Amino acid sequence: MAFFTGNANVELKDQKKVFGGQQLRFRHASNTLQCDMDFSVFLPPQAEVGKVPAVYWLSGLTCTDENFSSKAGAQRVAADLGVALIIPDTSPRGEGVPDDPDGAYDFGLGAGFYVNATEAPWAKHYQMYDYIVDELPNLVESGLPVSDARAISGHSMGGHGALVIGLRNSERYSSISAFSPIVNPINCAWGKKAFAGYLGSDERKWRQYDASVLLQERDNRSHDIPPILVDQGDADNFYPEQLRTETLIAVNTETSAGAKIRFQEGYDHSYYFIASFIEEHLRFHASNLR
Amino acid sequence: MAFFTGNANVELKDQKKVFGGQQLRFRHASNTLQCDMDFSVFLPPQAEVGKVPAVYWLSGLTCTDENFSSKAGAQRVAADLGVALIIPDTSPRGEGVPDDPDGAYDFGLGAGFYVNATEAPWAKHYQMYDYIVDELPNLVESGLPVSDARAISGHSMGGHGALVIGLRNSERYSSISAFSPIVNPINCAWGKKAFAGYLGSDERKWRQYDASVLLQERDNRSHDIPPILVDQGDADNFYPEQLRTETLIAVNTETSAGAKIRFQEGYDHSYYFIASFIEEHLRFHASNLR
Repeated sequence: MAFFTGNANVELKDQKKVFGGQQLRFRHASNTLQCDMDFSVFLPPQAEVGKVPAVYWLSGLTCTDENFSSKAGAQRVAADLGVALIIPDTSPRGEGVPDDPDGAYDFGLGAGFYVNATEAPWAKHYQMYDYIVDELPNLVESGLPVSDARAISGHSMGGHGALVIGLRNSERYSSISAFSPIVNPINCAWGKKAFAGYLGSDERKWRQYDASVLLQERDNRSHDIPPILVDQGDADNFYPEQLRTETLIAVNTETSAGAKIRFQEGYDHSYYFIASFIEEHLRFHASNLR
Repeated sequence: MAFFTGNANVELKDQKKVFGGQQLRFRHASNTLQCDMDFSVFLPPQAEVGKVPAVYWLSGLTCTDENFSSKAGAQRVAADLGVALIIPDTSPRGEGVPDDPDGAYDFGLGAGFYVNATEAPWAKHYQMYDYIVDELPNLVESGLPVSDARAISGHSMGGHGALVIGLRNSERYSSISAFSPIVNPINCAWGKKAFAGYLGSDERKWRQYDASVLLQERDNRSHDIPPILVDQGDADNFYPEQLRTETLIAVNTETSAGAKIRFQEGYDHSYYFIASFIEEHLRFHASNLR
């Protein structure tokens, strides 16, 4: 199978067979992020004979596209369901892309928070919201056997990204799910640091990137919202302070939004948690993908 | 659940819930290896109510106990089958343990080759054969809800280890399997370097650690041999030169040993290959474990 035929901007870096499908890694020159970006894709066997729907996976702090690819065991289920997995990096990368001046893990490289930065020096490269919503799916759907039937999921910072992007673009995603998401970043330390840095001190600008605010502002228009599934481990070191799951639960109840938010006893914040429940998430998405 | 109660030599370093069971990481002072060693264990949910049988997994060059734990997706199947996974490191470790003088990946740390070294300076610590055959199972069975019903499996150098240890101790293992094993190390570059270093220049001493030689020397006594399953990817960069699969196939045919040796089209040497077929291997072992 050839990929991105005629597109000199995309390079195939790695290709491995897994569960009868193909685990692929590409590098491309991103216009949105003004740097070269890697992303991984799993194509199920069904992609050999036609376009397949896709689950976009957004990873958490410090991750790249490789963590989910190697640790979640998602390819087995995706191969069974005939669903592609599209796995971007978590921030712009490379020389010239500024990082946290102290090298902190929760800002800068590996910590793009899926927002469009407005503040210097971040605004030039840190446009992850537009990259995930527009540039990456346009690229994938132009050069791979992947249709525009999309679902979105993610973990922690990526769970925040999946909820925010899915809620703000409900016409583009048929379902949303998240593991251990940061559901109310305007009220936790991770979110406050990231949003103050990328978006500036005017907290009104932060609200467009807060899942709980977005759900609240939709009020009772629950028919507009894609089906949502959230799993949260109750042995998670970052729960409740950074994740604030109860805020989402309250808004979900108040607005009758219909999100399914579950606690999983004894599970922590790691990929072992994701591996344990990714099958349920992918089957949830597949049942909603056209 | 308490582990290794009353044994001050064993420290629990990490514990995570996965697929309803427990992924555990321990450190202990090894008498055999004369150093502290880490090992990982997956206990399925069934271990809460009684002893469970175990599959021992031997990893390949450069690996620790963590590669298989995080990348193979084996816990899902082991939880379903009620089988423990016992995952040792691939060599002695720590200060005072000598490494390859050039820091090569294929000798010394991460490359113990599951032999008992006889040559200085390796002999003091590099006794991985005895560690895997005796010390580790004795420790595990004394302090965890794991029975002495054992199977053994591994990848590459660890596939070599599983075949050699299983063939030489057929009373201790009810089945053997391997992914991409080095089946004839006395005739490949990896094996010649390792065996010359650990065992000296007398090649007659190498033969006790060569799966093809061991199978050949059993001749037609195939009733002594545990059931064997081998999977080899035909897109593996190390096939055929380092792995020499055809040698094992020829001996298996000649001696009617009954090993099932399969080629898997398009798969390489990576953990994506292992992940794709670990379910079949674990079900094979479970069907043979008492």
